[in-house]
Amino acid sequence: MTNASKALLIAATGEDPEPYRQDLARRLPGLAIHAEGEDYDPATIAYALCWKPTPGLLASLPGLEAIFSMGAGIDHILADPELPAAPPIVRLMHDRTRDQIRDYVVHAVLHYYRQMDVAARQQAEKSWKFLQIRDKPKLKVGILGLGEMGSTAAQGLNALGFTVLGWSRSPKSIEGVTSYHGADGLAEMLPEVSYLVSLLPATAETVGVLNAGLFNALPRGAVVINLGRGDHLVAEDLLTALDSGQIGAATLDVFAPEPMPEDSPFWSHPAVRVTPHIGSDGNGPIIADAVGLNIERMSRGLAPEPIGDRSRGY
Amino acid sequence: MTNASKALLIAATGEDPEPYRQDLARRLPGLAIHAEGEDYDPATIAYALCWKPTPGLLASLPGLEAIFSMGAGIDHILADPELPAAPPIVRLMHDRTRDQIRDYVVHAVLHYYRQMDVAARQQAEKSWKFLQIRDKPKLKVGILGLGEMGSTAAQGLNALGFTVLGWSRSPKSIEGVTSYHGADGLAEMLPEVSYLVSLLPATAETVGVLNAGLFNALPRGAVVINLGRGDHLVAEDLLTALDSGQIGAATLDVFAPEPMPEDSPFWSHPAVRVTPHIGSDGNGPIIADAVGLNIERMSRGLAPEPIGDRSRGY
Repeated sequence: MTNASKALLIAATGEDPEPYRQDLARRLPGLAIHAEGEDYDPATIAYALCWKPTPGLLASLPGLEAIFSMGAGIDHILADPELPAAPPIVRLMHDRTRDQIRDYVVHAVLHYYRQMDVAARQQAEKSWKFLQIRDKPKLKVGILGLGEMGSTAAQGLNALGFTVLGWSRSPKSIEGVTSYHGADGLAEMLPEVSYLVSLLPATAETVGVLNAGLFNALPRGAVVINLGRGDHLVAEDLLTALDSGQIGAATLDVFAPEPMPEDSPFWSHPAVRVTPHIGSDGNGPIIADAVGLNIERMSRGLAPEPIGDRSRGY
Repeated sequence: MTNASKALLIAATGEDPEPYRQDLARRLPGLAIHAEGEDYDPATIAYALCWKPTPGLLASLPGLEAIFSMGAGIDHILADPELPAAPPIVRLMHDRTRDQIRDYVVHAVLHYYRQMDVAARQQAEKSWKFLQIRDKPKLKVGILGLGEMGSTAAQGLNALGFTVLGWSRSPKSIEGVTSYHGADGLAEMLPEVSYLVSLLPATAETVGVLNAGLFNALPRGAVVINLGRGDHLVAEDLLTALDSGQIGAATLDVFAPEPMPEDSPFWSHPAVRVTPHIGSDGNGPIIADAVGLNIERMSRGLAPEPIGDRSRGY
């Protein structure tokens, strides 16, 4: 199949394909673009751009060369029991995404370090009370997950003089980060951490990792910032820890399910900041550019990047 | 007079001298420390640590070698009509102060750039609505005042990829900052700026500089962040500009007077964030260390730093 006859299929459950189609058409003018449900020849589909693809759909595409995820995670693709084994699954990763996550993390850590939550409460009470600034070296940031996003967030925090600790499943060495790994490493790191940022990938092992045991291993009053996945967090455990004061505050960007139901106690909890999964936007032009860069790589005989690891799940 | 016989006078109107005395005694163990109103020999006072010193007090100290300000500004000292002409007036400037201002500015700019004000309103309404992240290069930060604090804030913003413009009275060249100066420069810069940060010094010329004319020169919906002095801002003009939408939001850390009176409309304005003059803390240990470093410099025959310019007023 020549490049000219190759096509891309948008297979995004619950998403309107039109904006993606327009961004892709602008970025990849020569490429035929179809959306699931339309009339297309399955044999021409070389690329699929996916969000929670319909199970079995990808297996129906004999010429598939790459499966592009619309997000950094690939769990929503691996959930397909008929997923074809051959094509690489490409995670969405773009400089802009890394920068967005870094900005979100830097804002959230500064928000608590500079007691902006306390200042907001004082403002609501029309209370003028000076807030002494605490010593930065005494308040360390711990990052769970040291992939592209975790390490970029660490750089942003380092630039502001924060001491950054980081944990990952397997050993990693990242400049400016004191690294821990494995279960023992986690137990060693948590008592040191005033601000815990989760950027863990979505895998079977990470479900429920932000639970009472972890919260109790943190110093009293620590802050939890979750940017990974909603099901990493045991919501009841966080509420209990917030009510006891073991956890001082939380910023949550991801939830299970999303949108968060109206009756969730997080909406109105005074110590919880809720943001609607805006850590990064992975929006149309970014997705189109990331897909475009990778299709160009593949046309030069290179592998797309970054390729998700099917066995690890991210 | 030998070093051993020199003494320091704490001349801080409205402040309890005791915490300062303890921090100074810890940092400068050999130095005699007095506070205004106590029994001391005026001829022994070589150093005065001042906040709004009682007019005439400094003129009564014939051996005064340096006047240390408790803040970055020196206007509260220059207000003394009998201020002796000889001793250098030393501004409070410490790495920690610079870093604190940078952190405050980075947080405030990220807060609006990442629409955390909108997210907070949505949370209050239990409304889940994705917030598209805007292109960073299109949203420039403008800093008024390019002294130590302005340039450190610019570095912090640069590290996060923000385009920074800066204005000062006289021409300055700072890496990573497109600089403007004078009245024409201000008129040229303002239309480019989405986030305007004021770090101007307190002088007669800067009173009322944040007024309707300036607000109208900004693009519609721009954000104002004031960390300079409260009297730089014409409060009524800001309220009018917020109500018309010309200014989208404001973060204010300084007020005239302070503490801000309970009937100020800023407390409850939905588009205004109020913080109680916490941009930097200039707290006891910092002041003691800054004074200590300068007394050590002077004992080696060096001038203290940074010396405020009496004619410019900062």
